[in-house]
Amino acid sequence: MESLMNSAEEQQPSSPPGNSWSKQEEINKNETPKCVGGFVLVHAGAGYHSESKAKEYKHVCKRACQRAVDRLKAGALAAEAVAAALVELEDSPFTNAGMGSNLNLSGEIECDASIMDGKSLHYGAVGAISGIKNPVLVANRLLSEAQKGKLSAGRIPPCFLVGRGAHDWAVGHGIPPCPSEKMATKFSLSAYKRNKRKMALAEKMDTGHNHAKKRRQSSETENGSGCLDTVGAVVVDSEGNVAAAVSSGGLAMKHPGRVGQAAHYGCGCWAENAFNNPYSTAVSTSGCGEHLIRTMLARECSAALQSEDAHKALLETMQNKFISSPFLAGEDRVLGGVIVLRCCRCVESPPSQNIQGILVEFLWSHTTESMCVGYMSAQDSKAKTHISRLPPGTVPGQCLAIEGGVCRLSVAE
Amino acid sequence: MESLMNSAEEQQPSSPPGNSWSKQEEINKNETPKCVGGFVLVHAGAGYHSESKAKEYKHVCKRACQRAVDRLKAGALAAEAVAAALVELEDSPFTNAGMGSNLNLSGEIECDASIMDGKSLHYGAVGAISGIKNPVLVANRLLSEAQKGKLSAGRIPPCFLVGRGAHDWAVGHGIPPCPSEKMATKFSLSAYKRNKRKMALAEKMDTGHNHAKKRRQSSETENGSGCLDTVGAVVVDSEGNVAAAVSSGGLAMKHPGRVGQAAHYGCGCWAENAFNNPYSTAVSTSGCGEHLIRTMLARECSAALQSEDAHKALLETMQNKFISSPFLAGEDRVLGGVIVLRCCRCVESPPSQNIQGILVEFLWSHTTESMCVGYMSAQDSKAKTHISRLPPGTVPGQCLAIEGGVCRLSVAE
Repeated sequence: MESLMNSAEEQQPSSPPGNSWSKQEEINKNETPKCVGGFVLVHAGAGYHSESKAKEYKHVCKRACQRAVDRLKAGALAAEAVAAALVELEDSPFTNAGMGSNLNLSGEIECDASIMDGKSLHYGAVGAISGIKNPVLVANRLLSEAQKGKLSAGRIPPCFLVGRGAHDWAVGHGIPPCPSEKMATKFSLSAYKRNKRKMALAEKMDTGHNHAKKRRQSSETENGSGCLDTVGAVVVDSEGNVAAAVSSGGLAMKHPGRVGQAAHYGCGCWAENAFNNPYSTAVSTSGCGEHLIRTMLARECSAALQSEDAHKALLETMQNKFISSPFLAGEDRVLGGVIVLRCCRCVESPPSQNIQGILVEFLWSHTTESMCVGYMSAQDSKAKTHISRLPPGTVPGQCLAIEGGVCRLSVAE
Repeated sequence: MESLMNSAEEQQPSSPPGNSWSKQEEINKNETPKCVGGFVLVHAGAGYHSESKAKEYKHVCKRACQRAVDRLKAGALAAEAVAAALVELEDSPFTNAGMGSNLNLSGEIECDASIMDGKSLHYGAVGAISGIKNPVLVANRLLSEAQKGKLSAGRIPPCFLVGRGAHDWAVGHGIPPCPSEKMATKFSLSAYKRNKRKMALAEKMDTGHNHAKKRRQSSETENGSGCLDTVGAVVVDSEGNVAAAVSSGGLAMKHPGRVGQAAHYGCGCWAENAFNNPYSTAVSTSGCGEHLIRTMLARECSAALQSEDAHKALLETMQNKFISSPFLAGEDRVLGGVIVLRCCRCVESPPSQNIQGILVEFLWSHTTESMCVGYMSAQDSKAKTHISRLPPGTVPGQCLAIEGGVCRLSVAE
């Protein structure tokens, strides 16, 4: 594992396409500080993004950023803005979330989603939910219902609902059902048929051998790092509140009822305002659910980001708590990605202007072949997008890429 | 909160009924060190245990300990023994797990359970599963299937299944279905009817007031700390491996599909062999699922138990990371309980005997009115049981009780 860590360490913190730092400062001089609104970072999945579809992935990230910024500009807090970004990502037929999700073993779509609000520290999640176009809206509604306090007769409101019960709760709370067949796409249906054939072939090949042993070893790389396009977003609003959300159709050909990291507290997303810590942090993860669950990657990243150097903290977490995690000792390829942001208040120079700033540091890192991200502040006219790829010759699941940037938001005191 | 913390701090670490330390040493002198087998600590729930039913609760704890010890003596590892203890706890009609579970809002039984193996760090969980007598056996089977590696065509085996999918997977793996009506008891059915009446009354009262506001405040204490009898166990085997498990019928009158802490990674149970840490730790939690999820109590306790003083570490975790947790800032009563064990290898005196010992420290702590526990080492002829209660005059959900003991196991080098 030594060489892998070296190969990761060789990667320098690169600036994202277009350094947003200087641009922000420029804009801040000409704007009323009260309306700056915040910042959003989204991703359309850590997995494999072909060059041919790059444009589509970038485009959906751009739209998702715009949706969040629109909400922020309208005065929405972070949780509402992050949910708005997720709806856009779910609605794209190209992402593995909401519309166009992977089909499970029975040819059905079952989605996971969760959202966390760093201000209230409340959390809402749905797992293996069918027949709802935007699972993140159910998670968000669970979060807001829980914030209202107890139900009748002192009952504690749920933060996590699954399956049929989650669907019925959603419909009972005014979220319209959507026929499952409308959520499948040409692409997801043809992928299902292809996977079915692959499975039949793999099982046929196994029959000829020592089944118990061979079944487990066969085609280990076939699932590769493809089709893991869980989506997510992290947001900071103009008050400095953070929120994070994640949504996924889960692994292709998963067993019905399987719940992945996107519905798992601490694993799919995390958001925590500063309170007693130096930084507010927000994290959203993507990739192989079981790997992200067992390493509790979202919460690990959030905790690590309290140390001084954000880039170093994320790099070390991805190396030591993910790729080399003792919890994944038996895995040959550890597949996942994260987007993170952290922010703190700081006084702008000259201090006599009486203007406080929020310094936002944002990063993404992945062990999958690629990860498509987009980001935008409320001052930007449009989002920047980027497909991050592992350096040529490196092995997915054993090496990582890490990039990021900084952005300063001004707010009136 | 100051006074509460004081009240908790006043509680001295008390020895459990019958100090097992001296007894263990006595027994070790007369036994072959190879066959000592291990230690188990179980609980029949943090909640309220009436004096009239005390005998039943103690009895089921005793049987659960015996089951685990039988397995340990037969050479089973920790995970198998902890599952055996859970089966006994689930089979009791007096506990809120398996047989006799709380009914949900629709009058159905939906169970959560999980198990973690400290040796492999693998984890298996089921949520909102119906029609299976022993949910822990499904969780355990998920764990052991995941340990075997990938499925056909490189698919990653699930660690968490919910609802109908979990049921079908279980039956497909040879776990027999059980008609739901057979899992309800006279007690759970009459509690359901009583709760239905309570809810109707509470909602009727609310209708006369400002609904949105009143609904949330009404009857806050009615759910109290009753009927939270999630069960659990922690085990160390003769090799020093630890395992933990938890099983629950969930909150009474919960929404269908609601999943509580018993199925949540890091929240219901945790087990981690020492590896690079000084101690192996195992934890199982009980109480209000949403409180235990949002504070991730099992993992928090495990991490804290790496510090020198186990009693102090658990006390501080219960106070600072549970009762006073910023994640539960809006809650007036934080209801839960934990059982923990930690162990480390140590050389017995005189060292010339060439015998290594495992020092086991075990504790329980709860903020609920009471918690029923049982514990036993493989050298004991029968288990000890105890109903721990909050000191008179203290308020459940705001104060805690903490007790424990130590036990030394000998193993040949």
